[in-house]
Amino acid sequence: MSERLLVKQLQSLPDGPVSVSGWVETVRDQKKVQFVILRDETGAVQLVNPATRPVDPSTGSGTGTEQDAAALALTESISAMTTGTFLTVHGELKHDERVKLGGVEIKIASLDIAAAALPETPIAADSGQDKRMDWRFLDLRQRRNNLIFRVQTTLEHAMRSYWVERDYVEVHSPKLMASASESNAELFSLEYFGEQTAYLAQSPQFFKQMAQVAGFGKIFEIAPAFRADPSFTSRHATEFTSIDAEISWIDSHEDVAKMQEELLATAFAAVKGKHGAEIEELFGLEVVVPAIPFPRIPLAEALEIVKSRGYEVPRTDGDLDPEGERQISAHVEETYGHQFVFITDYHPAIRAFYHMRDEETGLTKSYDLLFKGVEITTGAQREHRVDVLIDQAKEKGLGAEHLDFYFDFFRYGAPPHGGFGMGLARVMMLLLGESSIREVTYLFRGPTRLAP
Amino acid sequence: MSERLLVKQLQSLPDGPVSVSGWVETVRDQKKVQFVILRDETGAVQLVNPATRPVDPSTGSGTGTEQDAAALALTESISAMTTGTFLTVHGELKHDERVKLGGVEIKIASLDIAAAALPETPIAADSGQDKRMDWRFLDLRQRRNNLIFRVQTTLEHAMRSYWVERDYVEVHSPKLMASASESNAELFSLEYFGEQTAYLAQSPQFFKQMAQVAGFGKIFEIAPAFRADPSFTSRHATEFTSIDAEISWIDSHEDVAKMQEELLATAFAAVKGKHGAEIEELFGLEVVVPAIPFPRIPLAEALEIVKSRGYEVPRTDGDLDPEGERQISAHVEETYGHQFVFITDYHPAIRAFYHMRDEETGLTKSYDLLFKGVEITTGAQREHRVDVLIDQAKEKGLGAEHLDFYFDFFRYGAPPHGGFGMGLARVMMLLLGESSIREVTYLFRGPTRLAP
Repeated sequence: MSERLLVKQLQSLPDGPVSVSGWVETVRDQKKVQFVILRDETGAVQLVNPATRPVDPSTGSGTGTEQDAAALALTESISAMTTGTFLTVHGELKHDERVKLGGVEIKIASLDIAAAALPETPIAADSGQDKRMDWRFLDLRQRRNNLIFRVQTTLEHAMRSYWVERDYVEVHSPKLMASASESNAELFSLEYFGEQTAYLAQSPQFFKQMAQVAGFGKIFEIAPAFRADPSFTSRHATEFTSIDAEISWIDSHEDVAKMQEELLATAFAAVKGKHGAEIEELFGLEVVVPAIPFPRIPLAEALEIVKSRGYEVPRTDGDLDPEGERQISAHVEETYGHQFVFITDYHPAIRAFYHMRDEETGLTKSYDLLFKGVEITTGAQREHRVDVLIDQAKEKGLGAEHLDFYFDFFRYGAPPHGGFGMGLARVMMLLLGESSIREVTYLFRGPTRLAP
Repeated sequence: MSERLLVKQLQSLPDGPVSVSGWVETVRDQKKVQFVILRDETGAVQLVNPATRPVDPSTGSGTGTEQDAAALALTESISAMTTGTFLTVHGELKHDERVKLGGVEIKIASLDIAAAALPETPIAADSGQDKRMDWRFLDLRQRRNNLIFRVQTTLEHAMRSYWVERDYVEVHSPKLMASASESNAELFSLEYFGEQTAYLAQSPQFFKQMAQVAGFGKIFEIAPAFRADPSFTSRHATEFTSIDAEISWIDSHEDVAKMQEELLATAFAAVKGKHGAEIEELFGLEVVVPAIPFPRIPLAEALEIVKSRGYEVPRTDGDLDPEGERQISAHVEETYGHQFVFITDYHPAIRAFYHMRDEETGLTKSYDLLFKGVEITTGAQREHRVDVLIDQAKEKGLGAEHLDFYFDFFRYGAPPHGGFGMGLARVMMLLLGESSIREVTYLFRGPTRLAP
């Protein structure tokens, strides 16, 4: 098995005997010759077989040798072959410039069928999204979808390598908690051994801060997070992969922003280097490695700019809405030619209680990061002075009874610290110009989507 | 912030002004001189201050200059300083061979206290495990505990790099499911938007197999898994980090075993290279990079060997028990000098329904991997022929109603495939010679442990 030959390797091999494994993408069963397109995770190759048809009994004088019988059986097995069938082909590789698919084809000697597919494929190229989600394992066989997850692998590995090279510690924080991690809304709860109620972590927020008071210095985590969010937008899910980092001894959220922009530039460069050409071919867009530093715009200024573009944000809380985010990103793209922008200086009323506030302005030391008009991150310096932290929680109406374990973290010493949380699917969606996080999630989970 | 100086860098610096941040490990407040041991994530350094005491009012003629006042205030702040306080010290670095701690000390010029600790630390060096778990964020400040998570980071990054270099795709499979992923026992369930019941994934089993029928070829995932397991043993948790890989086009479970032993040898070599000396110092053991191939022993033979060593496994199902696992590992260590052993050829009665069976022997094409006497992995070739798979599920009394979505995966073509699942905490516990997975888990979760 270790020497399995991949389709992408065929072009560089000399003519001769080969064995290749994959699934059947199409069969063209012509009278005199049969063609099969076989795909594996690296590409597709044409298989060819000169058809041997049964002798017409009314005229026939066929000899019926063993060789004839084998050839007949092979032809019939190809005629009966269903799309999606997984098989290994043994045959002769032949280079031929006329073959459009990579300039090679394999003349079939024999076939080992691993598992045949049912004849009716339940989805087609033009099936709707929900139908495709029902049959996600077939949907994922598309070359485009396969690429999404190879890009994601490269993106994540580049981020982890960036952190590991800088001595960050990876943590696996618990997803089962005795209290809410963000707010009491959108919380999944479950019975925990009869007597207790457990909650699913909405984010690793408290536990990544715990690593700072534990003296870990710099940490990261890429893990699931859960929100009982009834939204059906293209940007929301009930379970999503959260990319989190948290660092100690910062001067302000600006130190977090600097790390995040460097991280993203590094990861995008890795994606462009490894998959740029294929992304251009299959998604029709160029991966842009963002220049550092990303533009920064205080929220108040951003609202002015959006207004001057003719859009009045209808929210009364002073935050941007999705159209406002698109407008400010369009402005940044036009003005600076940049796809990213940090929006800074949010009012405490629209931020979490644990965001630190600037002593002069009273605004939070936090940012949102927008990418192509969509928010992908909230970052902030955290309040590490426990008396101030408790006051800020009270101000938001959050009682100490559920948060006391969290306040304890800061009662025995704490460094100044901050970090960000970033949604992997949002980054992937925007990077590849897709319309919904559903398209870039392995198995999407939403209010009405719990299977397969 | 970007140029924060780490304690480990001090030794290589010349004498002169420095600023270092960390937390207070001890204070020695002597009459004429004060010493503070300051620790960060990379080491500890001694701070020193010649004490300036208030002039005795009965005899005193102190002039009370500003300089005196500042010196007095600094001395008093050190006298009042609590263990655990996080601070930044500014001062003069001085190399001095007599200083045991690294041969350097810092003469304090001034201190910036980030957050002072309460005077009473709730745990001590000799506190019991449960008490330490209550105050895990303080427990983790120990150098030994910090090392555990740096070792884990290196181990995981080496494994992911091994896979990424070999074109494995990383997947994030959902943890919210509409059915059980392993068995109906030990299953956490929750209400999902009023009408549905969701279950927490006991393993990514079905979804990593789904990647194979989706044509991904080779995949990996490191993510949480959940078991409502009421056990209180040193090896069980209700939430744990599962390391999973699954590969297509294998000939048997042997291909999976080969990948896993290479993976582990690579990862252990990385750990030994980066942390070997520190592990030896703090855990008193040598990291052994395992030789390849690991020994393999069929279960029936293993039972014979254990018996010949004087231990009769009391189980009636024909499997090894924990003492049997220790015995066979001791045999392997004595005979082959190896810490790992694959136990193979398990009877279907004691394996999951989806394990493929050998046509000749009727035994499963699966293995358990033992490391230092404890099971860390189950690996297997999976049954990819849907009719056989359904029969095997029926045989175990598993109805099609909950598994039909899984059987569907194999109805539209499937490659032969297999993989393994490995518990990260078990590997870490055994690698470092710890007595319980609780000691190597960031925040342990058990039947009576849901906080902090």
